[in-house]
Amino acid sequence: MTSTEAGAGPTPNDLWGGRFETGPAEIMQRINASIDVDRRLYAQDIAGSKAHCKMLVATGILTRADGEAILAGLERILAECEAGRMRIDPALEDIHMHVETRLRELIGEPAGRLHTARSRNDQVATDFRLWVRDALDRMDHGLRLLQSALLDQAERHAASIMPGFTHLQAAQPVTFGHHLMAYVEMFGRDRGRVRDCRTRLNECPLGAAALAGTSFPIDREMTARELGFARPMRNSIDAVSDRDFALEYLATAASVAMHLSRLAEELVIWSSAQFRFVRLSDAFTTGSSIMPQKKNPDAAELVRAKCGRVMGSYLQLMTVMKGLPLAYGKDMQEDKAPTFEAADAVELSIAATAGMIQDMQPDIAVLAAAAGQGYTTATDLADWLVRVKGMPFRDAHHVTGRIVRLAEKRDVGLEDLTLPEMQSVHSGIGEEVFAVLGVANSVASRRSLGGTAPERVRQAIAAARAEYLEG
Amino acid sequence: MTSTEAGAGPTPNDLWGGRFETGPAEIMQRINASIDVDRRLYAQDIAGSKAHCKMLVATGILTRADGEAILAGLERILAECEAGRMRIDPALEDIHMHVETRLRELIGEPAGRLHTARSRNDQVATDFRLWVRDALDRMDHGLRLLQSALLDQAERHAASIMPGFTHLQAAQPVTFGHHLMAYVEMFGRDRGRVRDCRTRLNECPLGAAALAGTSFPIDREMTARELGFARPMRNSIDAVSDRDFALEYLATAASVAMHLSRLAEELVIWSSAQFRFVRLSDAFTTGSSIMPQKKNPDAAELVRAKCGRVMGSYLQLMTVMKGLPLAYGKDMQEDKAPTFEAADAVELSIAATAGMIQDMQPDIAVLAAAAGQGYTTATDLADWLVRVKGMPFRDAHHVTGRIVRLAEKRDVGLEDLTLPEMQSVHSGIGEEVFAVLGVANSVASRRSLGGTAPERVRQAIAAARAEYLEG
Amino acid sequence: MTSTEAGAGPTPNDLWGGRFETGPAEIMQRINASIDVDRRLYAQDIAGSKAHCKMLVATGILTRADGEAILAGLERILAECEAGRMRIDPALEDIHMHVETRLRELIGEPAGRLHTARSRNDQVATDFRLWVRDALDRMDHGLRLLQSALLDQAERHAASIMPGFTHLQAAQPVTFGHHLMAYVEMFGRDRGRVRDCRTRLNECPLGAAALAGTSFPIDREMTARELGFARPMRNSIDAVSDRDFALEYLATAASVAMHLSRLAEELVIWSSAQFRFVRLSDAFTTGSSIMPQKKNPDAAELVRAKCGRVMGSYLQLMTVMKGLPLAYGKDMQEDKAPTFEAADAVELSIAATAGMIQDMQPDIAVLAAAAGQGYTTATDLADWLVRVKGMPFRDAHHVTGRIVRLAEKRDVGLEDLTLPEMQSVHSGIGEEVFAVLGVANSVASRRSLGGTAPERVRQAIAAARAEYLEG
Amino acid sequence: MTSTEAGAGPTPNDLWGGRFETGPAEIMQRINASIDVDRRLYAQDIAGSKAHCKMLVATGILTRADGEAILAGLERILAECEAGRMRIDPALEDIHMHVETRLRELIGEPAGRLHTARSRNDQVATDFRLWVRDALDRMDHGLRLLQSALLDQAERHAASIMPGFTHLQAAQPVTFGHHLMAYVEMFGRDRGRVRDCRTRLNECPLGAAALAGTSFPIDREMTARELGFARPMRNSIDAVSDRDFALEYLATAASVAMHLSRLAEELVIWSSAQFRFVRLSDAFTTGSSIMPQKKNPDAAELVRAKCGRVMGSYLQLMTVMKGLPLAYGKDMQEDKAPTFEAADAVELSIAATAGMIQDMQPDIAVLAAAAGQGYTTATDLADWLVRVKGMPFRDAHHVTGRIVRLAEKRDVGLEDLTLPEMQSVHSGIGEEVFAVLGVANSVASRRSLGGTAPERVRQAIAAARAEYLEG
Repeated sequence: MTSTEAGAGPTPNDLWGGRFETGPAEIMQRINASIDVDRRLYAQDIAGSKAHCKMLVATGILTRADGEAILAGLERILAECEAGRMRIDPALEDIHMHVETRLRELIGEPAGRLHTARSRNDQVATDFRLWVRDALDRMDHGLRLLQSALLDQAERHAASIMPGFTHLQAAQPVTFGHHLMAYVEMFGRDRGRVRDCRTRLNECPLGAAALAGTSFPIDREMTARELGFARPMRNSIDAVSDRDFALEYLATAASVAMHLSRLAEELVIWSSAQFRFVRLSDAFTTGSSIMPQKKNPDAAELVRAKCGRVMGSYLQLMTVMKGLPLAYGKDMQEDKAPTFEAADAVELSIAATAGMIQDMQPDIAVLAAAAGQGYTTATDLADWLVRVKGMPFRDAHHVTGRIVRLAEKRDVGLEDLTLPEMQSVHSGIGEEVFAVLGVANSVASRRSLGGTAPERVRQAIAAARAEYLEG
Repeated sequence: MTSTEAGAGPTPNDLWGGRFETGPAEIMQRINASIDVDRRLYAQDIAGSKAHCKMLVATGILTRADGEAILAGLERILAECEAGRMRIDPALEDIHMHVETRLRELIGEPAGRLHTARSRNDQVATDFRLWVRDALDRMDHGLRLLQSALLDQAERHAASIMPGFTHLQAAQPVTFGHHLMAYVEMFGRDRGRVRDCRTRLNECPLGAAALAGTSFPIDREMTARELGFARPMRNSIDAVSDRDFALEYLATAASVAMHLSRLAEELVIWSSAQFRFVRLSDAFTTGSSIMPQKKNPDAAELVRAKCGRVMGSYLQLMTVMKGLPLAYGKDMQEDKAPTFEAADAVELSIAATAGMIQDMQPDIAVLAAAAGQGYTTATDLADWLVRVKGMPFRDAHHVTGRIVRLAEKRDVGLEDLTLPEMQSVHSGIGEEVFAVLGVANSVASRRSLGGTAPERVRQAIAAARAEYLEG
Repeated sequence: MTSTEAGAGPTPNDLWGGRFETGPAEIMQRINASIDVDRRLYAQDIAGSKAHCKMLVATGILTRADGEAILAGLERILAECEAGRMRIDPALEDIHMHVETRLRELIGEPAGRLHTARSRNDQVATDFRLWVRDALDRMDHGLRLLQSALLDQAERHAASIMPGFTHLQAAQPVTFGHHLMAYVEMFGRDRGRVRDCRTRLNECPLGAAALAGTSFPIDREMTARELGFARPMRNSIDAVSDRDFALEYLATAASVAMHLSRLAEELVIWSSAQFRFVRLSDAFTTGSSIMPQKKNPDAAELVRAKCGRVMGSYLQLMTVMKGLPLAYGKDMQEDKAPTFEAADAVELSIAATAGMIQDMQPDIAVLAAAAGQGYTTATDLADWLVRVKGMPFRDAHHVTGRIVRLAEKRDVGLEDLTLPEMQSVHSGIGEEVFAVLGVANSVASRRSLGGTAPERVRQAIAAARAEYLEG
Repeated sequence: MTSTEAGAGPTPNDLWGGRFETGPAEIMQRINASIDVDRRLYAQDIAGSKAHCKMLVATGILTRADGEAILAGLERILAECEAGRMRIDPALEDIHMHVETRLRELIGEPAGRLHTARSRNDQVATDFRLWVRDALDRMDHGLRLLQSALLDQAERHAASIMPGFTHLQAAQPVTFGHHLMAYVEMFGRDRGRVRDCRTRLNECPLGAAALAGTSFPIDREMTARELGFARPMRNSIDAVSDRDFALEYLATAASVAMHLSRLAEELVIWSSAQFRFVRLSDAFTTGSSIMPQKKNPDAAELVRAKCGRVMGSYLQLMTVMKGLPLAYGKDMQEDKAPTFEAADAVELSIAATAGMIQDMQPDIAVLAAAAGQGYTTATDLADWLVRVKGMPFRDAHHVTGRIVRLAEKRDVGLEDLTLPEMQSVHSGIGEEVFAVLGVANSVASRRSLGGTAPERVRQAIAAARAEYLEG
């Protein structure tokens, strides 16, 4: 009995009030076709086919004449694609069918020999790895430029004093350059992640065929080399069924996006009228025709938001892969959309952040004034009592607390108390204490490795330039 | 000092090896413009503007002549959009600018009066609510059709016996119709979620203006009514800064997608050569040119995978909104892409599933045979011992276990044991026991409310038709 | 061949350097046992058993004497649990085994009759629904108290002027009470979600047995009624295999947590030395022994962070349920941990927020001063030009922009410009313009429904009290 | 005005019907204290303090006598903790306060000198890194044992033929060993991720102090060395404010958990009565007292489910860190719970999977029979036509399709067709074709690198043993 005999229910043609006009056929085509997404793989697909073709000729599986016809045809298709002249036909489901069909139009029968000893499964795995490898290279390049912008600003402001925050409350004075260098380190680690991911990804699935390998005498070392892979993948089932390279890319992109979101949040807060720590450039803000002083930090807000997209993409692909039996399942066709979207989001975010950082103008006077508020050198006083007076740290804390409360009661800064006032709390305090109470002295004294003393910051900048920019 | 004076680092022009050719301007436009996404809001934007315009005329804020010019212009723009003739210009950032600019081209000066007493903030909130409301209606309609397809199959198979599984191990016999009715219930609850979400969403933000309301004597009840909203939103700041209606939509879509993914998993497993429980139609499978018997359940796999996209979209928007200060932040521009993508995924998944269910052909003989394997009526025997022989349930379990082990040793079904064999385990067992050992008897006996007895299943089908399809 | 014959590899005993000392048995017990988590269900488990027992007696399946023994035993176990005297034995896997075993110790043979006509599957589904229902009630109660705290502060500050922000930039003046009322609305919608979720959840799975229903003449209406459910669930397979009630609870909790995180972010920013908009109480901040002025907003930060836990819990359970075939799978045992953790996080977050809001002291002077900065009444001027002078809105915007730039150049507020200065931009401007340039006038003028005018705010407060607190 | 003057609303004491009995104080303690979670850090905390103490002595900041007293006290506290004798007092918020307070009890005044030149911020960052480093080592060890178990089974079944699946439909024959080796590769890559994460993590934050470094002449190289770190972290702000090492750990754990979930899904499906591909051991299944043949694959299902927890933990911490301004925020206290929970879940999952794989008994006969169904050697026939008859691959596909349809019509396998029957489709086919139609021949012929030919599988096993187990 066919379903139409049921008589009772609506037919798929009714679905959505005719939204899917041709019924099941349209529904299936729309859910099944991937050409709208995977058309971005054209260059990788053609590169993979060229490598495969050369190998087929080298191993004698294909004649030299057929090989040459195929290579010429593929070159021409690549040129057409680059020129935006690929005709998209949803009936030809995916990019592979588009290239193959066009090749047949161009060169006829030999086109049918290109698919010897390979399958869609290893073909698409190869294409996608090549694409992700390119994305990793773009991400690394972008991060390098972002580090460069941060280093330039850090150098300019290696000694510019600002309040170091914990809980968004001023805690101790630091330099603006030191603060920016924290991000140079974060993005430095992210570049390490990019590098590790690239190394791990850089094995070639081509030759795994459908899932079992092939009986043709192919040379997988050759195709791997031709495509810039370090080696062929070692298990044909794994080669066509795992997508952990894309997931590792997405987790790496999410780490970058998270770090960017923190910097973006700081830019938004620092740009507020209440903080006025930095002024963003017109290029990355939007104004208001009637409130000319207003510079909405749109780019920073969007960078902050795009962290969501990257995390969402990672989750999406993880959810697809969770609990999927080997080898290939059609579920895996849903690997590319989230990866492309995350790549677009993170690349744009890096570029926008690099631009904002490069253009950003910190207000040194505002930063310095803020650094001096809130008894931010109280720790210096306590440390001085330990270092010079030999007090246990916990006792020194107690004495310092009483002195700060005294200053607070008098509504003055620590450095504005008189010596007798301080001595009323602890008789051993001498004139030399005043040297530790200013923010400049505080910053200069933090000379421990990695500390905020300007000389340390300058050392760190030089080391980072050497490691990250000249490497 | 401008950034170019720094001299040291790369300029944004270098970014990505010239990927952003025009530098900061291009980066900003690409991260800032939303027209590629929000162009889907054209109908809602125009509807909102028409309602606003009518209200401005009714309250005397706008002249009747201006109002008529605006309405006529908007109608024409709508027609242009529907005909696919809206010209997209990335410099005009978003759909609102596109409509407004075109209106000015068409009618001149009065176009400038339309934006009186509103702002982008309440405008976009209104547009997006209208869109999500439509999406809810489409989802409800789709679910209704899916329930209808399930009900048809359930009716056909109200008495077709299959193994009921726990842990993917046969546990007790049930009917195929009963199994399908579990999904009717799930989607019934999902439709309840759709309804609740729609009711909660259905308040109108228009008139909140930028965030504080307006000093114009607007009539928010009128615009709300005009756009089919139940009432205006009650707080202007809330109106422009919350997106929980979209999140609730996404959580509802995720619930639907999760339920669909379970059904899809079952279809994939049931279609395997090892199960052969159902045969999917050609329309929703792909074949293989060289393995004609192969029917890959592509549509089911894709439905299963798309659950990831919907979950990812929810996470994405939640991440955007987490920790965002009031009122509007540009981060919120990232609300539409995940919502549109999730809507596309879930609507397509519902349609594909409805189609698969409608066409699906269960193999009744295979199902029945599988139901009889694995001593699935052991519980019936234990219950019989309790019910008829008065044993405590735990003791009856023990006796049953010994009988099953006996059958297992003899490699026969329970119903194939002789009475003396059974009596060797428990002397009180009589001839009437055989009535409870067949799967048909087992199924027929489960007459408790909601149980799998065919009469109960038929009652449930009738009740569900009344509630879900005729409502 | 058993695994030990293999000889080659490490045995499970080696695993983790002896971490699992007893090998497979310990590993299995640790992954399989749920008692550490589900012990929190004791009250629900006992309530469910009591209802089931009463029904078994009422339908004659159990004798009255057995029923009374069971009820007395269950009462005693409940008392032991409440007194913290339940002995936990990991070998007894779950809470159900603990109760059942203890019951057997206490009353002997009749304990074995309690499990007649039910199964672990419907038992645990019932217990968990009861627990989630309680959690919904607690959440609703907490949100009500939080709304109450917000309403008290809103009432106190219905006319206290503050800057309304977009992009964390002052946009237009609003009142502090109006701002807080936005949250009253958000939590009001969340309470609606709680209510809808509770209604949908409130159906009783008991009687579904393993998955197929039962052949005993049970009365499911009675057990449902006894446990406060509105009705029995309608499909026995659905009853034991779906967990969408827990997911809907988690999505609701995530909505609440997201709203709380936004308020928490505002409290953190507002407490900074740069903003000084509010002062949090000592109870919800931590001080520093040496920086007495420092009040770290720890509670607010933790509330902001806990949004992550709630979202993570939702995602966790969604991932478990995605693609799970019917009916019960052991995977579903992982439903309770994320739900309990999310409930703890969100309940504590609500309580801490209610406390912070109740104690919070806004600095009215600072708020008012901030409201007057940044030409926040520019929109008022533009609206005045439209309303009084009849300009098209876009033209009025243009004129206003020029006036603001003039003020900016002179570094004064709009209200500090002279009339001739304004007239130099637009000759039609008269003395009466000054009435619209002050922040108090601006706020007072926004009398549209839902607007920030104090009278509107007070109306909204009264309406909210009636709806949310007296309902 | 204090909050109690408000008079109108409930006080926090009312919250949750007295759930928080002592009001704000209890709420704050419960949300703020972390001792329930971070008590697991005791060993790391004491190790960090010992290293810090030794360095303070070596640099002359602390006297030798004080240093010895502190070290002896810390040793004693460690012994107490290991013996389970640490007294937990919620008022002492965290593990650091517990250790410090106990140290003061034990040794008096010198305890107050231990905290010189450090802060909670660098202390907790150090403790947590040490813990995550240990967790990485445990994960690597567990994965090594799992690979070992997979290799043993792969070796045993290097030539056991099974159907290779795509879309859960048999596609081509492979060997069971080859299939298992795919997982050896996945976990091999995961171990690479563990290694990279460990290398990147292995820098020491100690000495960063609160956030700015310190003015004491500390030796950060020494403490780093003492704790087994490769070097000190280079920026003090970064050292206390980033948690990307925990996120990278979680992403790595999620990759492992995802791979485990795929294997678990296969074990569940393979254990079904319909597949019967493998038999799991009693140790990792649960039986049924009345259905003795039933072996529910509980451990596999739980492993599959725990993937959700690990993903949830990653998401949770990402959400916490997203958009968090530098340096330390209290939000970051929520870093440990998800990390500990994910570590527990993934370690237990690895152990359970290793045990299941070690014990698993594949049914070779069932596997072989399944491999021969479904014309799985059709590709071999097509390849043969290409290789031997020189047909273009696309034409060979077409011919093969016609032959398979012929076999299907006759309801026999390919190898059961007569030569004339085959020649009726293509006259060039000769007797030698039958050599390619058997599954054993098919498998043996796939000798390409990484292919499924038993000799290739054995090579792969040997190489994997050398790389993964002997490294």
